[in-house]
This record gives sequence, C-alpha cells and structure tokens, in this order.
Amino acid sequence: MPPAPDYRLDATAETVHYDWNRDRTPVLTVESGDIIEVECRDAADGQLPRDATPENVLALDFQGHALTGPVAIAGTDPGDTLAVDVLDLEHHGVGWTYAYPSEREQGLLPEAFADAAVHTWALDGDVGHFVEGIEVPLHPFPGVLGVAPAEPGPHATVPPRCVGGNLDIKHLTAGSTLYLPVEVAGGLFSVGDCHAAQGDGEVCVTAIEAPMTVRLRLRLVDRAVDGPVFETDGPFEPAGGGRTVATSGVAPDQHQATREAVSELVELVHDEYGISRAEAYLLCSVAADLKVNEVVNENVVVSAYLSRALFD
Amino acid sequence: MPPAPDYRLDATAETVHYDWNRDRTPVLTVESGDIIEVECRDAADGQLPRDATPENVLALDFQGHALTGPVAIAGTDPGDTLAVDVLDLEHHGVGWTYAYPSEREQGLLPEAFADAAVHTWALDGDVGHFVEGIEVPLHPFPGVLGVAPAEPGPHATVPPRCVGGNLDIKHLTAGSTLYLPVEVAGGLFSVGDCHAAQGDGEVCVTAIEAPMTVRLRLRLVDRAVDGPVFETDGPFEPAGGGRTVATSGVAPDQHQATREAVSELVELVHDEYGISRAEAYLLCSVAADLKVNEVVNENVVVSAYLSRALFD
Repeated sequence: MPPAPDYRLDATAETVHYDWNRDRTPVLTVESGDIIEVECRDAADGQLPRDATPENVLALDFQGHALTGPVAIAGTDPGDTLAVDVLDLEHHGVGWTYAYPSEREQGLLPEAFADAAVHTWALDGDVGHFVEGIEVPLHPFPGVLGVAPAEPGPHATVPPRCVGGNLDIKHLTAGSTLYLPVEVAGGLFSVGDCHAAQGDGEVCVTAIEAPMTVRLRLRLVDRAVDGPVFETDGPFEPAGGGRTVATSGVAPDQHQATREAVSELVELVHDEYGISRAEAYLLCSVAADLKVNEVVNENVVVSAYLSRALFD
Repeated sequence: MPPAPDYRLDATAETVHYDWNRDRTPVLTVESGDIIEVECRDAADGQLPRDATPENVLALDFQGHALTGPVAIAGTDPGDTLAVDVLDLEHHGVGWTYAYPSEREQGLLPEAFADAAVHTWALDGDVGHFVEGIEVPLHPFPGVLGVAPAEPGPHATVPPRCVGGNLDIKHLTAGSTLYLPVEVAGGLFSVGDCHAAQGDGEVCVTAIEAPMTVRLRLRLVDRAVDGPVFETDGPFEPAGGGRTVATSGVAPDQHQATREAVSELVELVHDEYGISRAEAYLLCSVAADLKVNEVVNENVVVSAYLSRALFD
C-alpha cells in the first residue's frame, strides 16, 4: 500500500473537464511532494452500459477525454519540471474496448473494419476476461497524464504533446515516474483515461477503458526536460509473456510498416485461433506490442508481437 | 547443444557474396529439415582491425553485407514458406560498433554527429565490454536472414524486404523461428551480419558487428506468409533489464518521433553518466529499445528505453 494521500479529488461536475486550458481555475493546490488520490471516470465519461452494443458505440458523444483536475503545484513556474510518481491504480471491475466504423476514420486500420465493435470486460483482480478461453493480464496505467500547454485557449485532449496529455504509454504503471516540462504557473496537472491493459499503439483506438482510482505523488525536481521522460520497470513482455508470435511490416515509411505489421497479426490471430477479425483487432489493441526493429536501412521494419500464452 | 549439423558452410571466396541474386548458383542443396552450420564474417567482411580507429571506418569499402550462401532447399517453389530455426550462435571474441561522419548520411541522427566513431568490443562469454564501468549483456542473432527476391538482377543487401534480408530484428535469437515467403525455385537462403547485441532500430547504423558461427535448421512448412513472421521468447527487456529510463518523441510523423526520442536519450546518457555524445549514440545503437507507444491520436509517441543496470 502506498502512503495515505494528502488530498482526494472526486470526479464531479466541478473537477471533470474535457480539454486543456491554461486559464482553467485549479480545483486544488498542493505542495511539491504531496500525494493525491484522484477518481477518474473512463475516457468516454460513463456513457457505455455494462453490456455495451455497437449501437452504444455509434451513439457515443465524445467531447474529449474525461479528465480530473486541474491541480496546481504551489510555487511552480514555466521552465520547471514536474515529476509524477504513479503510486497505485484500482479498477472498479469493468472496462470497455471498442472500435468505430470505417467512416469515422479512427484507429490504425479504419478501412479494414466496416462496423463498430465493442467488448465489455469483466475485470477480476489482475485479469480481464475476453472471449471464451482468452484472458488478458492487467497492467493498469493512466492514458492521460499532463500539464496545461502554454498556448492560450482550449486544446483537444486527443493529441499527446510535449507537456504530456494523451501519451498512452503502457509502461506508466504503478512504480513508474513521469517527468514533464511545465509551461504555465502552477503547472495545472490533470489525469484520466485509465487503461486496465493496453497494447503498444492502442491500434483499434481504445484500450481496456476503465474508471479507476489513482494515487499519484506530484514533485518539482531540479532536472530540465524538453518533453516526456520516464522511469519504469515495465512490463516489457507482451501481455502474457513467454512464447510470442510476431509479424513484420517492411516499408519505406514507418507508419505504413506499422499498419502492415498489425494487419498481418490480425489475420494470423483470426486464422490460428478462430476469433473474428474484429475481435482480433480489439485484442491486439489491448495486448500486442509494437517495436521499431530497424530504422536506418531504407526500408523500415516494425513488428507487432502477441503472446501465445493468451490462448493457453 | 543443438543436434549435430548435416552440413557446414565455411566463409570462402566461393560462399561469400555481397548482394541478392536469383541467378546465383547455390553452394549447397539441403533437404527440408536439415541443419546447417554456417561461418559468417562480420558485415564489413573483416576490414576492421582489433583496435579500429575512425580512420579505419572512413576507409571501409562496403560493397554490401558479407553473406554466406546461397543454400537451396530441395523441392522448394515460389509460394512456399521457409521456416528458419535459429539454433545457436557463437561469437569469436571480438566485435565493432561504428558510426559514419555526417556527410555519409547514415544512421538515424546523421546531422548530430560530425565525425566517424568506433568502438572495438572484447566479447567475453555473454558480456561485451564498452567504456570503463559499462558492460552490455549479449543476445546474439543474425542481422541478415533471407531468401532471393523474384526480381532478376542483383539487389543491394541493405534494405530489408518481404523475403527477409537485413531485418535486424533483435529477437531472432537462438530458439526463435523465422518464416519467410519463397519467391524463387530452391529459395536460395543466405545469412550474415551477425550482431552480438543490438538495440531496436540500430540507430547509429551498426550493432556489435561480429563474425560468428551460426547453426540453423531450414524447413518447408505448410503455412502461407506474405512477409516475415517469427516466434521468439525475447529478450523483450532493454539490455540489462530492471529499472529503465525512457525518452519520448511526440510528433505527427513516426520517423520524426523516433528521431526525437533517440536524440533525447543520447543527451540524457551524456548528461547523467558523463560519456561523450558519440559514445552514448553507439551505446543506444547496441542497447536501447524502441517502442511505438501510441499511433492513433494525431501525434505519434515513440519512446527509446535504456536500462540503468548498464551503468551499475
């Protein structure tokens, strides 16, 4: 158990917001070194029911990730560096993974999946239940951790930035520390979009999207950073570990190589394990890792990795 | 110890070649399931001395990777799939990591490093010695494993292709299996460019380039692949494992995000550990991992990971 928090932030109409804005009034001011316990809604702000259908996905009104904050750190100025120690995350037993239909042009392979798809996960301790016979180990982390950009006005939550935000780095698990450059007085830190498990790339555009309680320590540190820097113990193995199958995309363009790798992995999982292509796409978004194998030899190689242990 | 090989190929004027060509006469024909032991020169064909200097790097006459082969597999036709079981690799105690000067436009960050640089590694069992206090664990694999492309004429060895070649996938260690689509009769398999250790991306353009003896099993399998597919047990942790520091590039373009991540990691290693930027660049090329964290949210996030255990 981490130390008791100094402050708790509930997710309420006052604390939940859907964009970044340097002019948003902080809902809490803490001292450097304080621990906060933050209630985070799921990214879609509780709009999906427990037995979600593709129609529920089509009906989603996504204004931006539901973030909790902002928290000011007393005495923080532009040019400072904020360290965020991720101490602990607790899910609430449920999560969702979904993909939008082709015409929404979301995800890595929008043209390959005509229809919306969704899976509601029962989360049980450190395991999530997918279709019959497939369970995914959970490694929860906040998809969004960030401070307010210097530029005035509202900023969408979707693009990650050098001040953090929607980084979706699956290694920002409990025990890790993220360093972010501060651009505005007080920093104005917000958090949300918790993922119970995610593959690298979050390829179908969602992970296991889950409401959670997050405990974090916010510290000012004497260390300059230009963008996100972090320390982590992993996990580095693809979810499930052990024997892993991988497909490689080979192309002059890194994005194209990534698309090919994931596309081939979806086909392989569909062929070998008999789940639908849409199910395989959701599963890759939650459990597959992406590595840049080779980036200096004209054609780039990017591979997508999936543990065979998921299917044991 | 793997089973005894059925055949051995020495690296000689007859077996070593520097391009891919469907019209090259095979130096050996094996049956599916046979094990071959192959002597591989280092990629630069033995041109670097034991105490290499930047002048030696500038004087390199690189015509292509020195590959050994080609080996025909009896009864193989276009459309077949060749499985290559990587059974074992033995280094010969020495290896080289080098970077070219800016004007050669090689590597991921050519503009950042004006001068040629080189390190000769003493390889000792499963450890390589870098500068004082820094040792890198070895995980040897062949950088080039491939079959001949269908298109007639010579093809450069540098770009990887869907038929394999210069894949530089660091997970193709002993115990792994690579599946490749066959495009010409007999397949015409060649191997070389062995790396005693490599980071993802091989960012400075070389790994620990080392002559090695490689044992492989070549098998035809009843499984269609369009490009490289492989099975591996890793290693998935960045070389050294444990607590790992990472820097994130955040940019609309995946290649740019990768460049930013590696550039920041080089600076961090230089600042924190006091080795030169050029040394840090070579070390990242040998020991840092690259992951595509997020690829569906307008800006892409790619991070470069380096184990702090390297410096213990």
